[in-house]
Amino acid sequence: MVKPYQHLLDTEFLSKEEMQSLLSRARFFEEHHEEGTNMFQNRFVANLFFEPSTRTRFSFEVAEKRLGLNVLNFSEEVSSTTKGETMYDTVKLLSSIGVETVVIRHRDEKLIAELAKQDTGCTFINAGAGSWAHPTQALLDLYTIQQQFGDEIRGLRVAIIGDLKHSRVVRSNIWSLQKFGAEVVVSGPPMMRDAEIEKQAPYVEFEEAIRSSDVVMLLRVQLERHEQNLFEGSEAYLQSYGMTQERFAQMKSHAILMHPAPMNRGVEIADEVVEHPRSKIFTQMYNGVWTRMAVLERAYVERGGH
Amino acid sequence: MVKPYQHLLDTEFLSKEEMQSLLSRARFFEEHHEEGTNMFQNRFVANLFFEPSTRTRFSFEVAEKRLGLNVLNFSEEVSSTTKGETMYDTVKLLSSIGVETVVIRHRDEKLIAELAKQDTGCTFINAGAGSWAHPTQALLDLYTIQQQFGDEIRGLRVAIIGDLKHSRVVRSNIWSLQKFGAEVVVSGPPMMRDAEIEKQAPYVEFEEAIRSSDVVMLLRVQLERHEQNLFEGSEAYLQSYGMTQERFAQMKSHAILMHPAPMNRGVEIADEVVEHPRSKIFTQMYNGVWTRMAVLERAYVERGGH
Amino acid sequence: MVKPYQHLLDTEFLSKEEMQSLLSRARFFEEHHEEGTNMFQNRFVANLFFEPSTRTRFSFEVAEKRLGLNVLNFSEEVSSTTKGETMYDTVKLLSSIGVETVVIRHRDEKLIAELAKQDTGCTFINAGAGSWAHPTQALLDLYTIQQQFGDEIRGLRVAIIGDLKHSRVVRSNIWSLQKFGAEVVVSGPPMMRDAEIEKQAPYVEFEEAIRSSDVVMLLRVQLERHEQNLFEGSEAYLQSYGMTQERFAQMKSHAILMHPAPMNRGVEIADEVVEHPRSKIFTQMYNGVWTRMAVLERAYVERGGH
Repeated sequence: MVKPYQHLLDTEFLSKEEMQSLLSRARFFEEHHEEGTNMFQNRFVANLFFEPSTRTRFSFEVAEKRLGLNVLNFSEEVSSTTKGETMYDTVKLLSSIGVETVVIRHRDEKLIAELAKQDTGCTFINAGAGSWAHPTQALLDLYTIQQQFGDEIRGLRVAIIGDLKHSRVVRSNIWSLQKFGAEVVVSGPPMMRDAEIEKQAPYVEFEEAIRSSDVVMLLRVQLERHEQNLFEGSEAYLQSYGMTQERFAQMKSHAILMHPAPMNRGVEIADEVVEHPRSKIFTQMYNGVWTRMAVLERAYVERGGH
Repeated sequence: MVKPYQHLLDTEFLSKEEMQSLLSRARFFEEHHEEGTNMFQNRFVANLFFEPSTRTRFSFEVAEKRLGLNVLNFSEEVSSTTKGETMYDTVKLLSSIGVETVVIRHRDEKLIAELAKQDTGCTFINAGAGSWAHPTQALLDLYTIQQQFGDEIRGLRVAIIGDLKHSRVVRSNIWSLQKFGAEVVVSGPPMMRDAEIEKQAPYVEFEEAIRSSDVVMLLRVQLERHEQNLFEGSEAYLQSYGMTQERFAQMKSHAILMHPAPMNRGVEIADEVVEHPRSKIFTQMYNGVWTRMAVLERAYVERGGH
Repeated sequence: MVKPYQHLLDTEFLSKEEMQSLLSRARFFEEHHEEGTNMFQNRFVANLFFEPSTRTRFSFEVAEKRLGLNVLNFSEEVSSTTKGETMYDTVKLLSSIGVETVVIRHRDEKLIAELAKQDTGCTFINAGAGSWAHPTQALLDLYTIQQQFGDEIRGLRVAIIGDLKHSRVVRSNIWSLQKFGAEVVVSGPPMMRDAEIEKQAPYVEFEEAIRSSDVVMLLRVQLERHEQNLFEGSEAYLQSYGMTQERFAQMKSHAILMHPAPMNRGVEIADEVVEHPRSKIFTQMYNGVWTRMAVLERAYVERGGH
């Protein structure tokens, strides 16, 4: 019997228990590097990246190949006018030729959720939906925080700092962290604030956010997306709102620094702190593989045997 | 002993017996999903797509990986001025590094046939030659028709309808269907007629073609290729020459609808009929994998052991 | 115990013994096609090609897959302004997600050497550094020469002829050939001479170089890179400085012709000589796979067990 498809659309739609179960499997894969291998041989996955992304695509591809999946890659930057209708046919084609799970990144925030409502035969994994959601990033962030502070992260203060308006990871992280009982606050430059996000997590003054948090999660600043040249160059941004060595020194002595990458060194983060022992940026990338293996495993297991 | 290479250039050069043999193997692969797997491990195939094609490339890639082949992908849109001479060197390179079969799509109609005449060491599979030929599409269409009507399709009337001038599947389908004894007719808008094609299969008035045929095969309309804006938008085309619900209702009660995809929904086909039970469009895509596995198997088996 | 990474930066940094050891392994792989297969299963390699290169990328990809490696491909032409800093983060990401060896081609001559100095966790293989170096080409050339003349190539005269200014293979070949005791001379049109290269190997008049050498190694002419239109078309170049049939006939009766490809037929080489029995151009491509397998094997073996 085939169970209903268990898409991964966003952390909003996962219970704490479901997330904990995924993280447990991620830990299993991390601790037994060879175990997953060949779990789903002769089965197919497609990576459809309609926005450029070397990092996330490679992380998924490693996870997929570790599970023994056959991988089809498609990368193309498309205009936002590409019709959902066309995507439906593309995805039905993939299903017809034997693809079971489709990993998608697309600038259209609603596209993946719309596809998931339809009878396409595919399980969807959201690898980045516009500026809206990036659930596997949130899961690997959660995994990284648990690795540091233990399974019970209730009461930890997590500050998400930076370009709140244009980041796809903020909402996904708020949903998952709050379900685990963390206190999430947001901060950043005034012109990058976002009223909708501040309904979910309170805005805290910048220096205060850094000093008071157990986890400081920086966001990539996308200066090119801002209408005005708000800062006179990246050095000005770093001094005003970046993670300088001075600010890093003000963090709690046990606090960790995170960043979803890619980083703008010298803009939102100073070179010197990127590889500090309490910076977990490359650890996050490492953890991404195990987390995505867990998400993929769930997709294939839920579909039933081959 | 190595047999001479058995390229797949077009259905024109395959006997009915050869095609039936390929379709039998396709059926075998469909009925035994796991059988082909790893048949040709440690051997290499290259997909050279000089025109964009997600669908056909993915269909071949799934077929190749199901057979255990190692796949090299190359996709690049090239100008028509790329010299055949250069292609010869490219293909000799591939042969030199161990590639045995090359799947090619190219806008130059004669390129693949010319390569096949030379001593390159490669077996060629035509994955689309300009507006001229697309033999694996014709084979999967034939497979789909046999699936519906039984092996003996003699006497069936198949109507190929639409943009006869710019379709690469018309000739390939006429060759294969006529060898199996089907009666092929063509139809479509007056400005899309093609005198050469009508020497091979008679033109029948549009509504008559729809009402009288056992198989209605629509072609993709490439409005952008037409010199004049012949219709005022796609809706006008659909009403005049598209497969509307009304026209679908006029088809024989057992007749099936086919389309090589990608479709222009709302142009040559109305949304509502795409997934009608007697529309075999997604079935064609499904069948493409097994058919291409058969074609690839033939290429490797004919080359002898590794 | 993990040994220090043994990058392949250039033949300049390999001793004769190291090179001979690589060539011995290449011969082993050539003689036992199936032996290498699956040697490094469940391990990952990334091909980062920042300059277009179908040939070299495919040659590496075949070598990698023959060794059982999981392959991640990235190809993108980038502007020269891409920061090394960014590359460091990219490569750290790759290391974090499990990539052990990175095969890079980049127009920045110094990039790979700079990356190799840093603590990235990756072993680097230079697949082409600007106009500076292309060590795997030099190794496969050396392999091809040994195949023809025996292991002891001391005293052979090798003439490297053509566009000395813009070729990435000249320096790499001079380093390796001189370490094996070959006498290397260079030649070519006056406007393509390079003073730095002529400090390493003497310039010899063109016709003299052809007549007196045991190995004639042609370089690709990149007419588009030259500031002036120095010749009136390719025919003029061929007649003045190309390998015509007449010049080929003047080579020693045992001398072989080589070219790193891609060739400009009718520019630096006449069609008629490309596949002459003493032209080893396609043999070089064939040998490239075994040589690159040896280089990759060294990278993985040196890193220790998985």
